[in-house]
Amino acid sequence: MNRPADIPERLLMGPGPSNVAPSVLEALSRPTIGHLDPAFLVIMDQVQEMLRSVFNTDNPFTIAVSGTGSAAMEAAVDNLVEPGDRVIVGVNGVFGTRLVDMAGRAGAEVEALEFDWGTPIPIEAVEEALKRKPADLVMLVHGETSTGVMQPVEGVGALCHEHGALVLLDCVTSLGGAPVLLDTWEVDVCYSGAQKCLSVPPGVSPLTFSDRAVEKLESRKQKVPSWYLDMSMIRNYWGENRAYHHTAPINMIYALHEGLRLILEEGLEKRWARHLRHAEALWAGLEAIGWEPFVGQEYRLPPLTTVRPPAGLDEKEFRGRLLEEHDIEIGGGLGPLAGQVVRVGLMGASSTPESLLRFLSATEALSGAPEGAAVDAAEHLLAQEGV
Amino acid sequence: MNRPADIPERLLMGPGPSNVAPSVLEALSRPTIGHLDPAFLVIMDQVQEMLRSVFNTDNPFTIAVSGTGSAAMEAAVDNLVEPGDRVIVGVNGVFGTRLVDMAGRAGAEVEALEFDWGTPIPIEAVEEALKRKPADLVMLVHGETSTGVMQPVEGVGALCHEHGALVLLDCVTSLGGAPVLLDTWEVDVCYSGAQKCLSVPPGVSPLTFSDRAVEKLESRKQKVPSWYLDMSMIRNYWGENRAYHHTAPINMIYALHEGLRLILEEGLEKRWARHLRHAEALWAGLEAIGWEPFVGQEYRLPPLTTVRPPAGLDEKEFRGRLLEEHDIEIGGGLGPLAGQVVRVGLMGASSTPESLLRFLSATEALSGAPEGAAVDAAEHLLAQEGV
Repeated sequence: MNRPADIPERLLMGPGPSNVAPSVLEALSRPTIGHLDPAFLVIMDQVQEMLRSVFNTDNPFTIAVSGTGSAAMEAAVDNLVEPGDRVIVGVNGVFGTRLVDMAGRAGAEVEALEFDWGTPIPIEAVEEALKRKPADLVMLVHGETSTGVMQPVEGVGALCHEHGALVLLDCVTSLGGAPVLLDTWEVDVCYSGAQKCLSVPPGVSPLTFSDRAVEKLESRKQKVPSWYLDMSMIRNYWGENRAYHHTAPINMIYALHEGLRLILEEGLEKRWARHLRHAEALWAGLEAIGWEPFVGQEYRLPPLTTVRPPAGLDEKEFRGRLLEEHDIEIGGGLGPLAGQVVRVGLMGASSTPESLLRFLSATEALSGAPEGAAVDAAEHLLAQEGV
Repeated sequence: MNRPADIPERLLMGPGPSNVAPSVLEALSRPTIGHLDPAFLVIMDQVQEMLRSVFNTDNPFTIAVSGTGSAAMEAAVDNLVEPGDRVIVGVNGVFGTRLVDMAGRAGAEVEALEFDWGTPIPIEAVEEALKRKPADLVMLVHGETSTGVMQPVEGVGALCHEHGALVLLDCVTSLGGAPVLLDTWEVDVCYSGAQKCLSVPPGVSPLTFSDRAVEKLESRKQKVPSWYLDMSMIRNYWGENRAYHHTAPINMIYALHEGLRLILEEGLEKRWARHLRHAEALWAGLEAIGWEPFVGQEYRLPPLTTVRPPAGLDEKEFRGRLLEEHDIEIGGGLGPLAGQVVRVGLMGASSTPESLLRFLSATEALSGAPEGAAVDAAEHLLAQEGV
């Protein structure tokens, strides 16, 4: 017979999950009620309203998907792609690669616009591809969690619409931690995860469709390949009909409600500024002890930094000791970046001066850097910015 | 700005979710850690081991799917069905109908064996269908949540294997509340939900594949249609490789761990007996005041009872008042049974003498039955059985 689970306290500074605020954990543990209980429907409505604020959109179709971020990604792809559709995907990391895989499974004819990992996709490349051959859908990753690149997206919506294509944007690692302005950018489909900058445990995921995207969904000739993620049915549960489709993850929705509430209480602009300020301090600290940021400053994603350790440092051993001796989790590199970089997140509740200084101090100790070198550089920057 | 969510305390006696034990809610609210944290991998291993005990199987491939019960259903279908496969589905309610829909989306040639809602699928009908034309997979629903029928399954595994077919069994509403003996029954694919007899909030779902099923998965010619539910990749995360696929719903897995622990602490046979005893008391109480069980006693699913209210009683108004005035949730009929029956669950932590007596007492009051008539009949039965 097993005993209750043994769960350590960690400082979560990897690519997600991030640390979760006490009031969110408390909301998670409130008594479960039914998925059609009038009290639950009120909570769902409030979640939808708060998600619209966080996404900066008026899209009526704005919901929480009953799964982790990849479920929302698949929901976006499966509902918007029909067999034979032409889809252009910007690929500069793991998540663009995953979109290609998903779009292929959904039957799309996929053109991958491949660019170096660590660089963004040039908008001109999208324009050229659209001019070469029209497409139904363009997919871009706003915050590439595998590389730490933030994709410039201004103007891309208008460009795609001019060419008759819809545009999908993966905001898993940017929503709540960097500006996401869906209506301004004219984005049609966007999703995120709970466990990144929203600081809610994984298991429920924001998703929004513009009216154009809903129209595409409504005019499908074939059923959505996934029953579980079929938004043509699920919108009847989140919408006025309240028709049962599947049982929503009730307690996860409580947690998302509280997480969104905390975000709007803080204010989006303040929150974006907080993420950027702490990221800049992290960069200053790491550079001071010879760690080299992998991405040029212009395209760096504030919530997640990829960085090359100094020559001679075994990154895997470093991460292991950081976790075991200091209870700090960071991430390793994915795919071709495995062993090359580490990934350090400062997302949501994890994005604090205390977190980054604790990490820098432990990093100094574990890497043999002079004591205080990284911490002083970070503190200097934090002081400059008046924190 | 929204205030924290307003969540009432309900007695959950519908078709799920059921009430959740305090220690499970407490486990849910423990600090989130990483999905690759060694401490989390230990919890995953223990969950797998406990799931095997609850399923009564030795299947190495036994995991928790990152979604609600319908996600596990889709995972079962999508991974085991390839386009062109012939699939026989027993249909006697909503969930058989849903399996037909899912198998069709996965590209199967589906034969639906349709039988009256409220009756089981005769094993002879399965045998005849297999003799008429061989099939790759037979799908049956063990506990039909829409009708309250428990499907006899003894011998069906051997029968299907003789004819070269795999067998899938939906145990969403039976696992943990009625005998489920997968290896004895030779079942190849089985899944359940968390929020029924396991009394864990919805959002994570047990799934197990026999070695035969894993072999079928490994010999697929085409990719699984769903990336999110692709078990050929996910088994590398739950297995020894621990390869990242998607971020698991960490806190939901904590809750499942605690829920399974409570089940094994109680003991499966005691738990099945408890569900049956309380169901029998419920049936006695309801019959005493003129409510007619919809399913013959031989095929009644103990965790979930469908029952016709007495003539003249408006079931929708009854359920509304039960919720508003007594804080008790039960379910209405689905599909052709809407307005005909109500569904009363006594699952997991909701299956107690207190729950059923509170429900019967409220039902007497709301239906104009003599005070004590239903309660006395139920108490009489509970006393007889030495509770």
